[in-house]
Amino acid sequence: MIKNEDFIVKNLGERTHPSPLPLSHSNDDLVSNFTNDDERFLHEISLKKVSQIISGTPAENACWSDLITFEAAGPREKLFFDPEKIKCGIVTCGGLCPGINSVIRGIVMELYYRYSCRAIYGFRYGYLGMVKESGIDPVLLTPDTVEDIHNTGGTFLGSSRGHQDVNKMVDRLMNFGISVLFCIGGDGTLRAAHLIAEEILNRGLTISVIAVPKTIDNDINFVEKTFGFETAFSIAVNSIQSAHTEARDSLNGIGIVRLMGRESGYIAANAALASQDVNYVLVPEIPFELEGPHGLYSILKTRLERRRHAVIVVAEGAGQHFFGSEAERGKDSSGNTKLGDIGIFLKDNIAKYFKSINFKANIKYIDPSYIIRSAPPIPSDSIFCTQLAQNAVHAAMAGKTDMLVGIWNYHFTHVPIATATRERKLINPESNLWLSVIEATGQPAYIGNDPIFLSKTRIMGQKD
Amino acid sequence: MIKNEDFIVKNLGERTHPSPLPLSHSNDDLVSNFTNDDERFLHEISLKKVSQIISGTPAENACWSDLITFEAAGPREKLFFDPEKIKCGIVTCGGLCPGINSVIRGIVMELYYRYSCRAIYGFRYGYLGMVKESGIDPVLLTPDTVEDIHNTGGTFLGSSRGHQDVNKMVDRLMNFGISVLFCIGGDGTLRAAHLIAEEILNRGLTISVIAVPKTIDNDINFVEKTFGFETAFSIAVNSIQSAHTEARDSLNGIGIVRLMGRESGYIAANAALASQDVNYVLVPEIPFELEGPHGLYSILKTRLERRRHAVIVVAEGAGQHFFGSEAERGKDSSGNTKLGDIGIFLKDNIAKYFKSINFKANIKYIDPSYIIRSAPPIPSDSIFCTQLAQNAVHAAMAGKTDMLVGIWNYHFTHVPIATATRERKLINPESNLWLSVIEATGQPAYIGNDPIFLSKTRIMGQKD
Amino acid sequence: MIKNEDFIVKNLGERTHPSPLPLSHSNDDLVSNFTNDDERFLHEISLKKVSQIISGTPAENACWSDLITFEAAGPREKLFFDPEKIKCGIVTCGGLCPGINSVIRGIVMELYYRYSCRAIYGFRYGYLGMVKESGIDPVLLTPDTVEDIHNTGGTFLGSSRGHQDVNKMVDRLMNFGISVLFCIGGDGTLRAAHLIAEEILNRGLTISVIAVPKTIDNDINFVEKTFGFETAFSIAVNSIQSAHTEARDSLNGIGIVRLMGRESGYIAANAALASQDVNYVLVPEIPFELEGPHGLYSILKTRLERRRHAVIVVAEGAGQHFFGSEAERGKDSSGNTKLGDIGIFLKDNIAKYFKSINFKANIKYIDPSYIIRSAPPIPSDSIFCTQLAQNAVHAAMAGKTDMLVGIWNYHFTHVPIATATRERKLINPESNLWLSVIEATGQPAYIGNDPIFLSKTRIMGQKD
Amino acid sequence: MIKNEDFIVKNLGERTHPSPLPLSHSNDDLVSNFTNDDERFLHEISLKKVSQIISGTPAENACWSDLITFEAAGPREKLFFDPEKIKCGIVTCGGLCPGINSVIRGIVMELYYRYSCRAIYGFRYGYLGMVKESGIDPVLLTPDTVEDIHNTGGTFLGSSRGHQDVNKMVDRLMNFGISVLFCIGGDGTLRAAHLIAEEILNRGLTISVIAVPKTIDNDINFVEKTFGFETAFSIAVNSIQSAHTEARDSLNGIGIVRLMGRESGYIAANAALASQDVNYVLVPEIPFELEGPHGLYSILKTRLERRRHAVIVVAEGAGQHFFGSEAERGKDSSGNTKLGDIGIFLKDNIAKYFKSINFKANIKYIDPSYIIRSAPPIPSDSIFCTQLAQNAVHAAMAGKTDMLVGIWNYHFTHVPIATATRERKLINPESNLWLSVIEATGQPAYIGNDPIFLSKTRIMGQKD
Repeated sequence: MIKNEDFIVKNLGERTHPSPLPLSHSNDDLVSNFTNDDERFLHEISLKKVSQIISGTPAENACWSDLITFEAAGPREKLFFDPEKIKCGIVTCGGLCPGINSVIRGIVMELYYRYSCRAIYGFRYGYLGMVKESGIDPVLLTPDTVEDIHNTGGTFLGSSRGHQDVNKMVDRLMNFGISVLFCIGGDGTLRAAHLIAEEILNRGLTISVIAVPKTIDNDINFVEKTFGFETAFSIAVNSIQSAHTEARDSLNGIGIVRLMGRESGYIAANAALASQDVNYVLVPEIPFELEGPHGLYSILKTRLERRRHAVIVVAEGAGQHFFGSEAERGKDSSGNTKLGDIGIFLKDNIAKYFKSINFKANIKYIDPSYIIRSAPPIPSDSIFCTQLAQNAVHAAMAGKTDMLVGIWNYHFTHVPIATATRERKLINPESNLWLSVIEATGQPAYIGNDPIFLSKTRIMGQKD
Repeated sequence: MIKNEDFIVKNLGERTHPSPLPLSHSNDDLVSNFTNDDERFLHEISLKKVSQIISGTPAENACWSDLITFEAAGPREKLFFDPEKIKCGIVTCGGLCPGINSVIRGIVMELYYRYSCRAIYGFRYGYLGMVKESGIDPVLLTPDTVEDIHNTGGTFLGSSRGHQDVNKMVDRLMNFGISVLFCIGGDGTLRAAHLIAEEILNRGLTISVIAVPKTIDNDINFVEKTFGFETAFSIAVNSIQSAHTEARDSLNGIGIVRLMGRESGYIAANAALASQDVNYVLVPEIPFELEGPHGLYSILKTRLERRRHAVIVVAEGAGQHFFGSEAERGKDSSGNTKLGDIGIFLKDNIAKYFKSINFKANIKYIDPSYIIRSAPPIPSDSIFCTQLAQNAVHAAMAGKTDMLVGIWNYHFTHVPIATATRERKLINPESNLWLSVIEATGQPAYIGNDPIFLSKTRIMGQKD
Repeated sequence: MIKNEDFIVKNLGERTHPSPLPLSHSNDDLVSNFTNDDERFLHEISLKKVSQIISGTPAENACWSDLITFEAAGPREKLFFDPEKIKCGIVTCGGLCPGINSVIRGIVMELYYRYSCRAIYGFRYGYLGMVKESGIDPVLLTPDTVEDIHNTGGTFLGSSRGHQDVNKMVDRLMNFGISVLFCIGGDGTLRAAHLIAEEILNRGLTISVIAVPKTIDNDINFVEKTFGFETAFSIAVNSIQSAHTEARDSLNGIGIVRLMGRESGYIAANAALASQDVNYVLVPEIPFELEGPHGLYSILKTRLERRRHAVIVVAEGAGQHFFGSEAERGKDSSGNTKLGDIGIFLKDNIAKYFKSINFKANIKYIDPSYIIRSAPPIPSDSIFCTQLAQNAVHAAMAGKTDMLVGIWNYHFTHVPIATATRERKLINPESNLWLSVIEATGQPAYIGNDPIFLSKTRIMGQKD
Repeated sequence: MIKNEDFIVKNLGERTHPSPLPLSHSNDDLVSNFTNDDERFLHEISLKKVSQIISGTPAENACWSDLITFEAAGPREKLFFDPEKIKCGIVTCGGLCPGINSVIRGIVMELYYRYSCRAIYGFRYGYLGMVKESGIDPVLLTPDTVEDIHNTGGTFLGSSRGHQDVNKMVDRLMNFGISVLFCIGGDGTLRAAHLIAEEILNRGLTISVIAVPKTIDNDINFVEKTFGFETAFSIAVNSIQSAHTEARDSLNGIGIVRLMGRESGYIAANAALASQDVNYVLVPEIPFELEGPHGLYSILKTRLERRRHAVIVVAEGAGQHFFGSEAERGKDSSGNTKLGDIGIFLKDNIAKYFKSINFKANIKYIDPSYIIRSAPPIPSDSIFCTQLAQNAVHAAMAGKTDMLVGIWNYHFTHVPIATATRERKLINPESNLWLSVIEATGQPAYIGNDPIFLSKTRIMGQKD
């Protein structure tokens, strides 16, 4: 059970340095205001739920403190660090994701031009470059070196997967005299950043660890949206259109598109919604069956007989029960449970099924994974990356640590890393998002034969 | 002063028909739930402000009712109309905007497949086609006719600007036996829709008028985002890149891009932020001067001397004081005050200035207006349009009227048209958005010579 | 040995109908001229080769007839058919290719508006729809039905692979009273079209069979360029950029992109040239080895040690000797020899190699096949498709048959199908095109260990 | 009258240095061959015309020499320069055009990696940077500095318009010890390059001047295609689609798109052909009238009455007779006759016309000029640029001078600058290209009232 105290952000210590930003506290001077630490945003905006929480407890203090709130991001008037005197480091880890370069660039520009911090190091190839033994030296980052990187995909610093020794990484931060480490990465990276922040505190050091969560799957808890996600589903739409064209133009054509989504199907759901050409979306959150009168094979056959073609979008983490238990599947180098390749599995097994019933189907399979991951960000993601970067720098200068910069209801927030990584954000099958998907695809709310679910999920009126 | 009662949505009457949607009230059946009318969302999510409002009043009822809240959009369990028996009409008015076709398609698909409404008429060429005298007949809309329209820009129904007689329009609705009118349009369209709804009530009719606000400028009050806006600033980025390339590659090159934004500079601000190549953003909300030591000419010259090129983005409504008072400028056919062409004005006057000081500058001017307006929506806008359409249909079937479908903090809402059109949504010069713009461009917070503002807005550290 | 008589195009008979096109024979009236049948274009444009051929033979007639020439395409003044009275059929076969819809549209528009032919049938799903037993009826095509199809990929008529009975297809043409059949398809389709044309002549019928060659691989002999090819390599560049980004941003990253090209590597060569980010291009025309000191493994390892990343582009038909003889590989439904999947093969074997030498490499594999095939044409291809279609109609109306519309040195030509399909067009390893590839990639002219080739192909100066 | 002697390319002197390129003279060694100076390509490929020319003269030598032929581009076995010891310069002049950076990059890469030339200077801001008095120093170009420039539009070196003193430019070449100057520019640039080459010869210097023609209008004589042109018309298609959408979706909407084309309408013609949405294309080569029963106003009105919308594409140099004589219009800084703005002229006058007849028309005007000029090249242009650059370097190293690299019938050629600039390449109104335009648009071959032309150009069957 999440409590409000899980949302208290750690501070390295007292803030004694004035911010160099020329902001104000007044509302009519054309100048933005500094943000105070006690500025917090509500997690819940349903009036009914908010009033239930508040009214449900006797003491006034108690009731307010039961409301989960996020600390507001933004520039602080007093800083913990003297920005001109410190060194900062940036590291990017894990798979590629659109926008990493915009975040790097944004951090460098903000540090350099707004806070006059001149010593900015980029550790290369992820956490690997933060271990002395790798033999990989960091590079000095200046506005000149990063000026144009936002227009290209990938990460200017290089990346890698896999764990490194936390002690060695903290050693290297000490060796280089780094005061702030910006970590750009996904779930595994964030967990490691938390361990680094803890080791720093154990050693009594005052090094700030600020994360910008990078997960193309958009699955970080308490973060409404992660950068690169909008770009990802936007580009995925192209592959769906290709699959649709291929399916439609051959007799009984079936287009299958495998998209990212290890535990959360947000990319698949949004890409399907945007394209309007998808008939079935399969996501990790909602189990499905292949066999039986209400399984995928059967409803797919019915659709082909009626419409001659079909498009399936499947998130990479969907249907993992076909590949055995998590224990049987083992872990990859990033520490994630290995996934069976559900795309190839569906392609092969659907082909087998139709062959077995002597029904000539034409299956076309598209896996655009790297094409999506390596793309530059679309403009809305560019803006988002820049703002995440600016707020990450504000947080770091104020001496915040062990936190990530998130967004909730359009407001930038600070979230303790441990809280955000406790569990993944998943699609709620009863959410408006999923309802829109079902309405747009016309697929049954439940693809399987369990009589209890079947009775609850009367098939919704189908679309053609 | 806006009060919570301004957010009460009108209903045509008692709801007696069961919804054909197979939804539930339970949270564990894989089936989405119906939305109740008392589901409301907070306007304000700052904990400090919320608690101030609530604590500031003695009686519990009173305090809660001081909080501004929006009625939640979504499918209702009981309907006012029997959807299979009614006729619906759709009309699209005003200038083009990316996504209109997706909204039309979404309304038709939702009416047809989810509510089994089969009589859907599209009025052609805006309100003009709603007046019998135009001689323009409506077209019957079916899933087949709208299936592929979302992939193209513009409006399948055609559009027009200008006012029509409200009585004649209501006459025609009666003649055709229309029970629901969906109006897709901007400020002027919404005001007319409000008048139509009032005339309907005056006549004692039960015709629902539901609006989907269409303003590429994103300037509807109490609506976080309007459809087409994200597409607009995304495409505008291309023109900025062109202007940047042209400016950079000639000696003392100045690229000027005029973007949409009659009263609100959101497109200019976001496009500039996304491109990172802009040096000055001029918006209607913030006045600026050309002459004098701190005017635009002077800071532009300084920039050219230092960097040899500059890029200016100007919203069409910026700097209107250069063209005389509103009275002097008159009104256009949509009833908006005519705007002087600030783009051409700047291009000509900046050229004159540099000629007058014998400084050879190369000015390149880009006005991508129609290229942006006529584009199809980007994927995130496609999704948004579809969801707006679905919620518009839900609202209509429930017998809501004189309202628009909006969004606030990611939740779809119902907003009375009169409330939303009372004034425009503007960029707050002290908001985080504008701060990001200033940080990204390096432009002064104030471009002018007024000593009071100058003293308040110390020039922020410039970017190169 | 190809002789000039192989380029004589068959005619159905005497031309007695005047063309409805308002063209002229004069050069100063702003009106284009009709084309005569004796207008022919030189195959060879090298002065040296042309003069050798002509001078090499004694009799003047003989020498000119030794020059291979193509019959010029274009509108004829007299027609064999009376266009208002005949029925035409269109069929599209084989895999998708950008531009099919533009060709269909172009044929329909030209027939309808220029020749006033009103009975135009589209056979559906390839040759399958030309066999009565399929139960698939043709559709009537009009300007209205095809007006917007050029903006989408795929084929409006559907397609299929595989052979159908030639007699049954001719039967169906007779049943429908078709006078002209337009066949849009690749090598297999063209061979079948030739058989259809022969069967028609055997039966003493006067049905014209005109082909528009559709091969994304650009491998039709005596045809400089096929439609869709430019689009194909243009889109392939995106996948190469993705592979480059993925490779560059991980330590020892290897990006592998598999592109189309069963027997000819034109797409791979051109995409690599356009991207400038490729290090090795492997095509069917040039054998290569994996093992040994000069094999691919070895030079790849050297490159990684020097530059940390590499990009390989491989045409699907390259390296087929790794999969056994043609006999061992068998045939697919279109009658082509089955291809081993060289992309997956390289990916797996390169991974094995680096594992075996304990060298940590990161391999990213991209196969954009369907994304490319299903795309709409780029503008230059749109134009090309339209002009091919116009010339196909001109040829048909003149009573030409058993021929395809090609292009040579920018001039549209008529080529007998049997001549064009005798063998495939291949990249000449000593051509300027391949020289440009080698210069742009820096790859050795020969990747293998044969000492004779090694001595001839001194390694060209490498690029970084 | 052009004669074959006009196509003889100047050489600086005897070639004594062996080429470092590892090419051969044999056809079966996987290695490309060197090109000999006597390799020439025919200008004319019509068999009839070629045989007429040859047969028309008595002496065999004479008859061959009457055939116009181009010297083949390509690597020579012996070089005039020792590439490791010389310095090269590159200059880019005039307006932006897609692909300039690819040409710069291609020259640098070829010089550096293939010829081991290490001293490559880029003169900045066009010919201005070649004059000492400008105070602008050249930059040293290496593979590192140009590696990624091909992915962005514009010119890495900057550009300028206008004349500079030829003597001063040659002085500067001498001061820097430049042996080869690569000039990338349009008509004016080429004329200046010719003057530079002549001054060099006058001074007895051995500096090679090699041009790569850059004209987005594609109007260089004896050059089939210039770089950037395909990109230009490809991007222009987007603006036409916008104009079409805007026109179609308002009542009596007229979309006007102004495109580049000072004297030649190739961009307008090709963009119109590719889009298929244009009704009237106006180009400089074909005069037209506005008034009268067969003028533009009248046929436009008829079209609106029939179809409710129309799209006009106008090349910037069309209809210049509306603005007075060339003398009256004067010259711009590049020495070209100033053009009246035909786009604005048409927009204003068409509006006036319809107002005068009380016909409510909606005119939307798009001028995408800088958006097109500043774009990066499409892939086919990238390849073309690279190959032009490679051949420019081959020519320079062989000691050719006062020539440009062109292409004719897909073969790269050398053309003396004076010959290529003698007159512009224009669209022949009776060519297949223009016939395709007329067929695709359905516009009359002649828009005007001259009875002689009217009688010759019976109106071709119109398209809807």
